[in-house]
Amino acid sequence: MKHVKAAVAGVTGYAGAELARLLLAHPYADPIFLGRMGSTETTSLTDLHPQLARNDGKPSPEVVPFDWELLRAQQVDFLFLATPHEQSREWAPVAIANGLRVIDLSGAWRLHDPANAAVYKLEDHDPSAAAKLQAETVYGSPELHRAEIKDARMVANPGCYATSVILALAPLVQANVIDLSRGIVVDAKSGVSGAGKAPTTKTHFMYAADNLSAYAVHGHRHTGELLEQLHLTSEDIRFTPHLLPIPRGILSSIYLRLREKSTPAAVDAILRDFYRNSPMVRVHAPGDLPQIQHILRTSYSDIGFDLAPNGRDLLVVSCLDNLLKGAASQAVQNMNVMCGFDEAEGLR
Amino acid sequence: MKHVKAAVAGVTGYAGAELARLLLAHPYADPIFLGRMGSTETTSLTDLHPQLARNDGKPSPEVVPFDWELLRAQQVDFLFLATPHEQSREWAPVAIANGLRVIDLSGAWRLHDPANAAVYKLEDHDPSAAAKLQAETVYGSPELHRAEIKDARMVANPGCYATSVILALAPLVQANVIDLSRGIVVDAKSGVSGAGKAPTTKTHFMYAADNLSAYAVHGHRHTGELLEQLHLTSEDIRFTPHLLPIPRGILSSIYLRLREKSTPAAVDAILRDFYRNSPMVRVHAPGDLPQIQHILRTSYSDIGFDLAPNGRDLLVVSCLDNLLKGAASQAVQNMNVMCGFDEAEGLR
Amino acid sequence: MKHVKAAVAGVTGYAGAELARLLLAHPYADPIFLGRMGSTETTSLTDLHPQLARNDGKPSPEVVPFDWELLRAQQVDFLFLATPHEQSREWAPVAIANGLRVIDLSGAWRLHDPANAAVYKLEDHDPSAAAKLQAETVYGSPELHRAEIKDARMVANPGCYATSVILALAPLVQANVIDLSRGIVVDAKSGVSGAGKAPTTKTHFMYAADNLSAYAVHGHRHTGELLEQLHLTSEDIRFTPHLLPIPRGILSSIYLRLREKSTPAAVDAILRDFYRNSPMVRVHAPGDLPQIQHILRTSYSDIGFDLAPNGRDLLVVSCLDNLLKGAASQAVQNMNVMCGFDEAEGLR
Amino acid sequence: MKHVKAAVAGVTGYAGAELARLLLAHPYADPIFLGRMGSTETTSLTDLHPQLARNDGKPSPEVVPFDWELLRAQQVDFLFLATPHEQSREWAPVAIANGLRVIDLSGAWRLHDPANAAVYKLEDHDPSAAAKLQAETVYGSPELHRAEIKDARMVANPGCYATSVILALAPLVQANVIDLSRGIVVDAKSGVSGAGKAPTTKTHFMYAADNLSAYAVHGHRHTGELLEQLHLTSEDIRFTPHLLPIPRGILSSIYLRLREKSTPAAVDAILRDFYRNSPMVRVHAPGDLPQIQHILRTSYSDIGFDLAPNGRDLLVVSCLDNLLKGAASQAVQNMNVMCGFDEAEGLR
Repeated sequence: MKHVKAAVAGVTGYAGAELARLLLAHPYADPIFLGRMGSTETTSLTDLHPQLARNDGKPSPEVVPFDWELLRAQQVDFLFLATPHEQSREWAPVAIANGLRVIDLSGAWRLHDPANAAVYKLEDHDPSAAAKLQAETVYGSPELHRAEIKDARMVANPGCYATSVILALAPLVQANVIDLSRGIVVDAKSGVSGAGKAPTTKTHFMYAADNLSAYAVHGHRHTGELLEQLHLTSEDIRFTPHLLPIPRGILSSIYLRLREKSTPAAVDAILRDFYRNSPMVRVHAPGDLPQIQHILRTSYSDIGFDLAPNGRDLLVVSCLDNLLKGAASQAVQNMNVMCGFDEAEGLR
Repeated sequence: MKHVKAAVAGVTGYAGAELARLLLAHPYADPIFLGRMGSTETTSLTDLHPQLARNDGKPSPEVVPFDWELLRAQQVDFLFLATPHEQSREWAPVAIANGLRVIDLSGAWRLHDPANAAVYKLEDHDPSAAAKLQAETVYGSPELHRAEIKDARMVANPGCYATSVILALAPLVQANVIDLSRGIVVDAKSGVSGAGKAPTTKTHFMYAADNLSAYAVHGHRHTGELLEQLHLTSEDIRFTPHLLPIPRGILSSIYLRLREKSTPAAVDAILRDFYRNSPMVRVHAPGDLPQIQHILRTSYSDIGFDLAPNGRDLLVVSCLDNLLKGAASQAVQNMNVMCGFDEAEGLR
Repeated sequence: MKHVKAAVAGVTGYAGAELARLLLAHPYADPIFLGRMGSTETTSLTDLHPQLARNDGKPSPEVVPFDWELLRAQQVDFLFLATPHEQSREWAPVAIANGLRVIDLSGAWRLHDPANAAVYKLEDHDPSAAAKLQAETVYGSPELHRAEIKDARMVANPGCYATSVILALAPLVQANVIDLSRGIVVDAKSGVSGAGKAPTTKTHFMYAADNLSAYAVHGHRHTGELLEQLHLTSEDIRFTPHLLPIPRGILSSIYLRLREKSTPAAVDAILRDFYRNSPMVRVHAPGDLPQIQHILRTSYSDIGFDLAPNGRDLLVVSCLDNLLKGAASQAVQNMNVMCGFDEAEGLR
Repeated sequence: MKHVKAAVAGVTGYAGAELARLLLAHPYADPIFLGRMGSTETTSLTDLHPQLARNDGKPSPEVVPFDWELLRAQQVDFLFLATPHEQSREWAPVAIANGLRVIDLSGAWRLHDPANAAVYKLEDHDPSAAAKLQAETVYGSPELHRAEIKDARMVANPGCYATSVILALAPLVQANVIDLSRGIVVDAKSGVSGAGKAPTTKTHFMYAADNLSAYAVHGHRHTGELLEQLHLTSEDIRFTPHLLPIPRGILSSIYLRLREKSTPAAVDAILRDFYRNSPMVRVHAPGDLPQIQHILRTSYSDIGFDLAPNGRDLLVVSCLDNLLKGAASQAVQNMNVMCGFDEAEGLR
C-alpha cells in the first residue's frame, strides 16, 4: 500500500495530540508535525505530550515551524488543520492551491449556508475564492458522504456534538419515519476536553468537578451542522449541550416520536441497514443503550435505542469520544477513505 | 416554640444520615434514632456516620432498637420513616394507630392510583385499612399542598427526581400554558447517592466514574408521581433518568413548547407568582440556568429557564440535592409545616 | 454576648466565600464585606457566590469598596484579610494603627524568621514598623497558642497544609518522643481548591482530573511554618505536597520513629492529653485512620495513628478541609478566642 | 516469527480484560479465552467487555469452559492465570505437568519465603510438589530477572504496588547508595480498579469518590515482594497504600537518604544505567517527577526523582497503570521475553 505524507498543523491541543498518536501508529502514514508559522524553534512532540514518549531509542518526532516551502520540499500529500477556525479559514485555500488535500478539524468550512456559518465570524481575504472552495468542501462524515469524500480535495471534519447527533438521526431522517410535528429534542452531554485546553473559569476543576450545567442553550455552533446535514429546521429540533464532570466522552439523548407505530425490530433494521458497511459505528441491540465508558478512547460511535410501549416514542442514545470519533479518529477515517485504505485502518 | 419529639427509623442510609444531621441542629426538634426492630443492640450514631461527631464532650446520640413501647414511653410526636418501602408500608398504619404523625421517605405511600403504585409490589396485611390510610395520605410537597400537609397525620415525602420535575412544571401546568400536543421531555441526571448505599455493579466506582448512562428508560418508579401530581398522562411527558459520575445532586432539563408565543418576563412572572411564599425554591432570572454546584448540600430547589427566540420553545432547568430537598430536608420542611414552625426552620 | 462587627476583605475567593458563610451564620458576628479599595462599585455577595442565596426576602449582603473611613464610621472591631499576601502585608499595619484587630489569612505574617519569610518576597514601606508588628503577631493556631491569641491585636492564620501537619506533630514534639535521627516524612495531599481560583494549567480540569502529581518538592511556602512552630530543622523533616483530583480536603500521612518502644495506648494518651480542651480537633481511636470524607465541609481536624508491631514506627494521619480548618473556620475560631466566645461558636 | 497459542483463564476482571485486549492485538499471539472449569456455557468476550467490540464483521472471541483436554487439543503453549490465588495455586502445577508454560497474575506464586507467603493462606494438595514448583518459579519482573524469565516454565507476575516500588528502588539498592539506617518510606496511592471488580463498601462510588484513605497500613500483601526482591527487612522500609478517587493508576512517593552526598547527575546515571535495555521503563530527567496522567493506559513505568539541596535526601516518584505494567502488560512483556520476541512487542 502506498504510504502518504501527512502534515499536522496544531498539535498542541487535545485533538492534535490524539491525531499525532493515531498517525504515528498508522501503518501507511508518515506524519510530520507543524508548529507556528514564522517561528524558528523546533520542539519535541513528547515535550508537549509526555504520554506519547515511546522509549524506543529513537528521537521524539519534531514539531517544526509551519512553512509552505517545507511542505513542498517534503512532498506532503495531506494537511490536517487542527487549528483555530480563523487560521483554518486562511490556510486551507493556500494549501489547496499548493496541491495538498486538506482535512480541517475546525468549524471554519463545515457550513454551507452563510446564515449558519455566521456564528464563526469568518473574514475572507478573497471572498469569492472562499465561496468557491466552500462549495466544493465535503462534510467529512464518511457514513453519510463516503463517495464524495473519496475524491475530495477539501474535507471539513464534523463537530463532536454534531457527529453524535447526525449519526443517530440520519438513518431515521432518511427513512422518513420521524413525526416532525412533535419535534426532536437532543439533550447532549460532553466531557471537559470539548471546551479546549485554554484555562478558563469553566474549565477550572472547581467549576467542572462535582457539577453539571447546561450552556449555549440557543445557538451552539454545532446546531448549523445538524440542520444542514439532517435537512431540518430550527423548529424541528432543539439541541442543548451540558458540561459533564469527566475528561472526555459525549452522550446524546435524543427524543422523538415516530410517524407511525413501529417495533424494535423495525427500528433496528433501519439503523443496521444504514450502517451495514460502516466499520466505525456500532449499533446496539434494541433496549441496550450505549454508555460513555464503552466508547472512551475508542474510535467508535455507539448507537442504541429504546422504543416506548406505545410503539412511537423513541429514545436514541448516541455515544462517542469527542477527541476521537468527534475529532481525530474521524479525521484519520476521512484520510483512509480519501486514500483508498481500509476505512478502519489504524483505528481499532 | 414548643419542641417536638421526632423519632427517625432507618438512619443507616445516606438520606437517614442527612435527616439525623438536620434534626440534631433543628432548634425545636428533639430527635431519637431507631435501629432494627427486635434487635437488642444499641449503637452510636457517630459510629455509623463519623462525619457527624461533634467533639463537644457529650456522648454521641444513640441508635436504639425500634420498639413501639419506647415511642409511647418517650411521648414521641413524629415518626420519620427512612426505611425500605415494604417496611414503611407495614409500619405507617401502626404508627398512625399509635397516635403518631408520620413522614415517610420511601415510595410506599406516594401514589394514589393503584396502577401507578403497582411498581412497588406492596402487600398489605389489611388492604382496606391500607386503602383508607392511603386516601388520607398527603403528598409532601409543601409548595403544592401546604395547607393539607399542615393538618395531615400521614405525609408521603416525594421522590428526589419527582420533586425536581414537579417543582419545575407545576406553575406552568397550573397556568395552562403548555402545548401538550408537542409533548414534554424530561432528561434528568442524578448523582450516585440516589442509587442507595448497597454495593452493586452500578454503584461500583469503576462503573459510575468517568461514565454517563441512561437507565430505567420506561417505567422509573418516580414517573407515577409526576403523572399524578401534574395531572398528565404518559403520552404527555417522557422521563429518562441518567446516572452522573458525582456523589450527589440532580439536574433535570425539561423541554416543552408553550401554547402561545410568550416573553421571558411573562414566564418569569408565572414562576415567581407560584413560589412567592415558598422559601425553599429559588427562582433564577430569565436565561440564568441553575447548576448542580449551587444547590449541593443546600435545602433549596433552584429553577431557571430559557425561552427560545421563537417565544415558544421553553427549556426549564431544575436542580436540587437529592439527599436534601430530594429527601431529608423536604421531610424536615414538612415537619415544620405540620408543627406551625417557620417553613425554613433549620434548613438555611 | 456582645456582638462584634467583622469586616472581610477579599471575599471573591474560595476561602473568602466560606468565611462569609460562617460569619453570616455566626450568632455574635455582624459581618460586612469589602471589595477593591478605590472602586466605586457595590456588588452583591450572592452574585459572586450563588450558593449563598438565602431566599429569605432580605436583600443579599453587599460587597462595598474597601475604605478605611467606612470601617471607622461603622465601628468595625475585626478585619479579616483574605487577600493576596502583598495586600495583607500593606494593609495590616494600617488596620492596627486604626485600632482594628486583624486576622490575616494570607502567608504574609506567619513567619518570624526572615529566612523563612523570604519565599513571599515581601516589600515593606516601613521595614522597622513591619518588623515590630511581625514581632507581636501571633500564629493563629488556637490549639498551640490559645492564650496569646486571646489578647492579640494581630493574628496570622496558619496555612492549610501547615495546620494539618502541625496539629499531628505538636503533641509528639512536646512529649519529646520522636527519634529525629531517623527523620520525619510528611507526604501531604490536597484538593484543587488549595491552588486558588485563578484558571491555570494546573487547575484545568484536564490536568487535575484522573491524575495525581507531586509539586513544590523542596521549598513549599508552608515548610517554614512547620519548622518554626515545631522547632525542627529542614534536616529533621521532609514535606512533599501532592495535588489530588478532588475539590477540597487535605490528608497528610506522617511517618516517624519513636525514640523508645511504646504502645498504642501511650501514644493515644499523648494526643488526647494535648487536645483535651480543643473542640475542633477530633482524635481517633488507635488504628482508626481519618479519611477526607469525614472532615469535608466540617471545621474539624481529624487525627489518627497506627503504631507498627515493632512499637516504634508510627504513622500519623491528619485530615482537614483546606478551606475551613485550613483557612476560614480557623479564622473564625481565632475570632472566637479573641472575643472570649466559645471557641467552637458557629463552627459545628 | 513463530506464533504462540496463549490461553487466558479469568477474563472477567479488569486485568483480564486488558490482557485479552493486548493479546488480541499482539502480532504473534493467538489467544483463546477460558471461563469456569466444568461449565458448559460458551459466552462472548464482548458481552463481558462491550468496549472490546471491533465491529469488523467477525464474531466476537468466545469464552469457552476451562478444560485441560481442550488446551491439549488446541496445542496451547502458554497459560495466563488471571484467577484468584487459590485457583492459581491449584492449577499452575497441573498446567506445568501438562507441558504448558505459565504466567500467573495472582499472588499465589510470588513469594519464596513461607513467612511472607503466609498472608495468602494457601493450601497445597501436594506440599512438596508445590514447594518444588515454587523453587523454580521466577518473579516476573523482566527488568530484574530477564535472563531467568527467558527460560522459565513458571513465572509469577508481580503485584501492581510492588512493581512500582521495586522498579524505583532496585537500581539504588544494587548501587548500594541508600542509607538504610535512616529508613525508606513508601507512600503509595492507587486508583480503585486495584481493589477489584466485586462491589464492596470500599469500592462503592460514595466511599471512593471525593475521598482519600490509607489502608492495610501494616501487612499489605505486596510488602513481602518488596522485601524479597529488594533484599530488605521490615525495619528498613515502610509501605503504606492509599485509595485514590480515580479509576486506575499508581503513584508511589519514595523517601530515602543517600549514604553520601551526591548530585542529580549521579543519581540519574544510576537509573539510566540500570534501565539502559529496558524498553518499558521511562526514566525522567532530574527534577521532572512523573504523574499518573502520563502513564494512564500505557504499558510504561515512569520513574523520576528529586534530590534535596543537601545532596542526600532523595524523593523517587514511580508511576504505572496498575492494570497494565502492574498486571496485564507486564504479563505480555514476560511472554515476549519467554518467546524471544521483542520485549515491547504489542505494548506501545
